[in-house]
Amino acid sequence: MTQTTETRVSAEPTGPDAADREGDRIQRGADRDREPGPGARADGHDGYGTQEATAILARTRAAVDPELRRSVEALPGTLRRVALYHFGWEHADGTPAAGHAGKAVRPALVLAAARALGGQPDRAVRAATAVELTHNFTLLHDDVMDRDATRRHRPTAWTVFGDADAILAGDALQAQAQRLLAEDRHPAGPAAAARLAACVVELCAGQSTDVALERRDPAEVTLKETLAMAEAKTGALLGCACALGGLYAGAGEAEVAALDAFGRAAGLAFQLIDDVIGIWGDPARTGKPAGADLAVRKKSLPVVAALVAGGPAAAELTELYGPPGTGKESDTELAAMAQAVERAGGRDWAQTQAADQMSRAVHQLSQAVPVPAAADGLLALAEFVTRRGH
Amino acid sequence: MTQTTETRVSAEPTGPDAADREGDRIQRGADRDREPGPGARADGHDGYGTQEATAILARTRAAVDPELRRSVEALPGTLRRVALYHFGWEHADGTPAAGHAGKAVRPALVLAAARALGGQPDRAVRAATAVELTHNFTLLHDDVMDRDATRRHRPTAWTVFGDADAILAGDALQAQAQRLLAEDRHPAGPAAAARLAACVVELCAGQSTDVALERRDPAEVTLKETLAMAEAKTGALLGCACALGGLYAGAGEAEVAALDAFGRAAGLAFQLIDDVIGIWGDPARTGKPAGADLAVRKKSLPVVAALVAGGPAAAELTELYGPPGTGKESDTELAAMAQAVERAGGRDWAQTQAADQMSRAVHQLSQAVPVPAAADGLLALAEFVTRRGH
Repeated sequence: MTQTTETRVSAEPTGPDAADREGDRIQRGADRDREPGPGARADGHDGYGTQEATAILARTRAAVDPELRRSVEALPGTLRRVALYHFGWEHADGTPAAGHAGKAVRPALVLAAARALGGQPDRAVRAATAVELTHNFTLLHDDVMDRDATRRHRPTAWTVFGDADAILAGDALQAQAQRLLAEDRHPAGPAAAARLAACVVELCAGQSTDVALERRDPAEVTLKETLAMAEAKTGALLGCACALGGLYAGAGEAEVAALDAFGRAAGLAFQLIDDVIGIWGDPARTGKPAGADLAVRKKSLPVVAALVAGGPAAAELTELYGPPGTGKESDTELAAMAQAVERAGGRDWAQTQAADQMSRAVHQLSQAVPVPAAADGLLALAEFVTRRGH
Repeated sequence: MTQTTETRVSAEPTGPDAADREGDRIQRGADRDREPGPGARADGHDGYGTQEATAILARTRAAVDPELRRSVEALPGTLRRVALYHFGWEHADGTPAAGHAGKAVRPALVLAAARALGGQPDRAVRAATAVELTHNFTLLHDDVMDRDATRRHRPTAWTVFGDADAILAGDALQAQAQRLLAEDRHPAGPAAAARLAACVVELCAGQSTDVALERRDPAEVTLKETLAMAEAKTGALLGCACALGGLYAGAGEAEVAALDAFGRAAGLAFQLIDDVIGIWGDPARTGKPAGADLAVRKKSLPVVAALVAGGPAAAELTELYGPPGTGKESDTELAAMAQAVERAGGRDWAQTQAADQMSRAVHQLSQAVPVPAAADGLLALAEFVTRRGH
């Protein structure tokens, strides 16, 4: 485990969809719900980049929401109701709701990448919408598989409409995403559709691995497969979003690959930070009890790093993590687990890794976008999702 | 209820995938498993059309299987294993299996439609494969929702690999289907992709309605919605397959629409016959106990037609169908239900409707393909799936 004192990543409640998520597990697509408290913007880490990211996200929602809503409202019958509910546009009884559909980090990456590569973001709105539809298809399905009961501060779709309609609404959203790209007259449409479909396969593989890892004995989980799982589940769609923006800007293969790598690294950095928050985050800010991930024995990245570290703290953690969570652990028991993770080096490792991934992201971005000023938007979004401070 | 003596549709065990299906419910995509007995080909209904259909199906499998297998084998890890198992290419333990992946009626319709419209079937192989991938994605998901335990004479994927991996493998197959079309250089690729995506939405809506209808009180189910459900669940993909063949042949909008209508009507005819077989089919041929659909109180088309017919037989059936099936009904009880359906006119209605739908299919086919000889293949396939005799 490498110790670091230089690069201290702040463990703050944010991420691609911090304002509208809630759940007990890493979501495919990095979609945990950690609510920033009222003071989240007054913590000293709120620089120009955050303001810029906030503005980009607001512009993105204004551009994408009409297309997104059109696509959802085109669904027939119950599928439409389930999807409108999932996006927060309707209550369970079908009456209109004021909730919004998420921060739109992924569509913002599509549009920002298109802009960074000299394209016209307004011509990439369908691609951005397709990415958001895909993200939400995976959320609907993941919630069914993980039996997560809450998302965006509301009961998940399957708890309201049943497993079948939640699965079917997810299937339909995947189809609508592909339909948008297939009907787009933009010359990048087919390449974007192929790339998004390949990404879906990777997201599914990541979720499959996650389900498998969570069922396995803690002593038999490796760091390599946990990192690969996090990249597939969280990094892949952020990378794909950036790549699609590049494709829609007519970028070359090398630039598109670098954009993808940028998004993946940023996504992995986010996941590492999110996992740190899941153990040491301030309950007042996360809206979740302290050590929530430990209570469910989640095999998050810092935990697995600690488990495989060797030494007495790792052995202690293996002991503590063996039996399934009862949900009735005392604060003292959860604190003992958190301390064991920390003493075994899991926290430092995660923070160092997150910093490394952000460096990697910045490097990849410089490969894709040689003019620093043009990369500002993408960089602001990457810093926003990982909230590294400035 | 219109009586008919002229057009007697034979209640024989066949259908798009008769040789490799087994289940208790209508499958989205008309995929019930009714095994033809050894004598199925020696029943007097086996004319030139059946031979032609059999030859077309064999040619289709030879053309499509390599592409299909490539697409499935490109999946990573567990998704690959689940899909290989589902297609019958591997046993649950990952060892190779000799089973085949289905009769390939849908891909055969794609290729036959392309040929009928003057196109080159070998250029439509990817489209045909995409349709088959889509069909199998819906089967994987439907089996999870319907808790069907058997398909193609083997335990369903979810019973072997769990719900999560069965859902994820289905998601991945939908993605692979779209990827094939997106990567196809054929000019019809985008239009075909859009049409297939729209069809998936319809298939999902059909399955959603089916799940809802099965839960509803028999007295509150209408014939109109049951027919609409059957068209969405069974007709839509057969129609889409034909339409894709037309698109790949460069056919005009009117021809493509007529091909779609042809496939839909043939699909609905098949479903009506399949429902008749589900009640009165010969157990020796279907491989299922007599009255299997009645035992689970399936709201199949003849049953709903009987329930809404009015009169004493309908009232008796409503009484019998009210309580949920115990699975322990005696043959006498099941025979009483079957007789009530028949006395209320459900059997005759279904057979008349099937004949009407086949007439409609033939008419639509003549609109799409004015030269009768060119339509031979499509007609043979339609007759094969409905097995009307010749």
